[in-house]
Amino acid sequence: MKRFLVLALLLFLGCETPKNTPASPESTFGIVIHGGAGTILKKNMTPEMEAAYRATLEEAIRTGHAILKVGGSSKEAVEKTIHVMENSPLFNAGKGAVLTADATIELDASFMDGATLDAGAIAGVQTIKNPISAAIAVMEDSPHVMLSGKGAESFAEGQGLALVAPEYFYTKRRQQALERVKARENQTALNSEEAAYLRAQRRGTVGCVALDQSGNLAAGTSTGGMTNKKWNRIGDAPIIGAGTYANNASCAISATGWGEYFIRAVVAHDIAALMEYKGLSIQEAAKIVIHDKVGKLGGDGGIVGIDNKGQIAMEMNTAGMYRAHMDGKGNLTVKIYAEE
Amino acid sequence: MKRFLVLALLLFLGCETPKNTPASPESTFGIVIHGGAGTILKKNMTPEMEAAYRATLEEAIRTGHAILKVGGSSKEAVEKTIHVMENSPLFNAGKGAVLTADATIELDASFMDGATLDAGAIAGVQTIKNPISAAIAVMEDSPHVMLSGKGAESFAEGQGLALVAPEYFYTKRRQQALERVKARENQTALNSEEAAYLRAQRRGTVGCVALDQSGNLAAGTSTGGMTNKKWNRIGDAPIIGAGTYANNASCAISATGWGEYFIRAVVAHDIAALMEYKGLSIQEAAKIVIHDKVGKLGGDGGIVGIDNKGQIAMEMNTAGMYRAHMDGKGNLTVKIYAEE
Repeated sequence: MKRFLVLALLLFLGCETPKNTPASPESTFGIVIHGGAGTILKKNMTPEMEAAYRATLEEAIRTGHAILKVGGSSKEAVEKTIHVMENSPLFNAGKGAVLTADATIELDASFMDGATLDAGAIAGVQTIKNPISAAIAVMEDSPHVMLSGKGAESFAEGQGLALVAPEYFYTKRRQQALERVKARENQTALNSEEAAYLRAQRRGTVGCVALDQSGNLAAGTSTGGMTNKKWNRIGDAPIIGAGTYANNASCAISATGWGEYFIRAVVAHDIAALMEYKGLSIQEAAKIVIHDKVGKLGGDGGIVGIDNKGQIAMEMNTAGMYRAHMDGKGNLTVKIYAEE
Repeated sequence: MKRFLVLALLLFLGCETPKNTPASPESTFGIVIHGGAGTILKKNMTPEMEAAYRATLEEAIRTGHAILKVGGSSKEAVEKTIHVMENSPLFNAGKGAVLTADATIELDASFMDGATLDAGAIAGVQTIKNPISAAIAVMEDSPHVMLSGKGAESFAEGQGLALVAPEYFYTKRRQQALERVKARENQTALNSEEAAYLRAQRRGTVGCVALDQSGNLAAGTSTGGMTNKKWNRIGDAPIIGAGTYANNASCAISATGWGEYFIRAVVAHDIAALMEYKGLSIQEAAKIVIHDKVGKLGGDGGIVGIDNKGQIAMEMNTAGMYRAHMDGKGNLTVKIYAEE
């Protein structure tokens, strides 16, 4: 009887092994990205623009996926994926960022490591080519979590990060957007559809969350903020807990949307808390926070998230969100509109 | 038997009435404040200093309590209570704030309204006399939640808030502290006790949470940050979710401590989430977050909190925290050391 029990135990442990040390590691990692949420409607999109967005989303996510596939860290995957979107003029982050009311560029970014809960963020910088790398440098090479303005630039310079003249970031499209927003600002009677369209044109963010083969989660977010923003406004993107959060105990989240509402709803941490404290799935938690909390406050936007098992959420209460997912098996999803 | 049961039920309901619809409304409000947590030891304190701290804590909390007692809002109570501490040179907020590495002053503050989840914050301002009022003005009179630096000052000026020359904030004590910290920074061998003492001298925050007679919660936090801080560092005090959070569904929290750890642990929102999602009391939730989360990451500090029933928490993992509580009946508690 004793020998039988030992045998049964060994068989049981043997059966369990695949769960704990997976034979096929590629099934256990994944990456999700967004390039902003808002009133993104097919009627306002040319086939060329749509193709350009889809191609860059695919290029970005394949960059991170390739890192994860060979056993690279979720941190590196998030950083390099976000670089592709920061370097593209299509998205409101890095090159192509929106303009402030003073026609300047003020970039925000943050990063969080789910294994250690280490985090870094920068706010209101004007000369750092890749803000996500500056956020990671703050985390790794400063005693602080969040740096801002000239101080953050001076820190980045000391770290040898690439600096550029502010002109690098400017695109004709964003300059025209600022002119349009300022012109509309002076009109009194905007109907609600116009107001929503205007809001959507004014902002955007890029973000990436990843689970690597070691089971570590990471999240990063980078943005130019909101067109026509004033008074050195800081949005949710550089706020740990609001725009970005990662914790191996639950999930990694990156948000995009009307930042003020995402700060007030502490969106990224609230999704993690609903998972950890109420046992909800990442999809259930994301739905509650985006629709019942942000939505009920009057805000709009979305999130991408991945949990510590590779389950994902891409949730929004807007007409669209540039987004993509690639799982451990290499299955790729690229979407733009809410309904597709 | 039936009549007896009805009678017993009526008696029971009669006895319960005070709990649900209080006959004496003053039992349902309350206010809690802190003036910073750290290595505050009796051996380092003169009787005069201790008396000065206790007197100012009492003056501050009585200011807010008087507002609540006559039916004033928790928002007004928090603002006016924090003014007393901002205007006192004893605390690291407003006058008496610590100095940055460049011997400048950079003030941060935030406020949150638990009824509406409205919030406002400012970071890195140098000329606003009462930063908590600027945070409230951002909430009420701007489309944004968080403003920083020169932009925040320009906004505050437009709002007619009191501006002062940077010299107003300077105190001899904080200038000496910067010199000491800089001198020690160049020493290599600090033992852990010295390092902890040094850290504690470097920072501090003031904060206030209140529950008013209408059942509305509010939280506010104001600080000069950390002595010798560099690169326009932003700490937890102006971060909604980290240093400040209020939600009528759970509690109002204001934190003080090593800000980097409080950001990473999303302290104020995590306490609220443990209450709302796990049904913990405010004391249980605060203990978990301060000891098991912040403490295990290696951080130190504390929080004050009040829930929507008037239950309070004053939790720390440091040798002391300047703190006071006053309940609806007027019972006053003023404490400095952890054990008292």
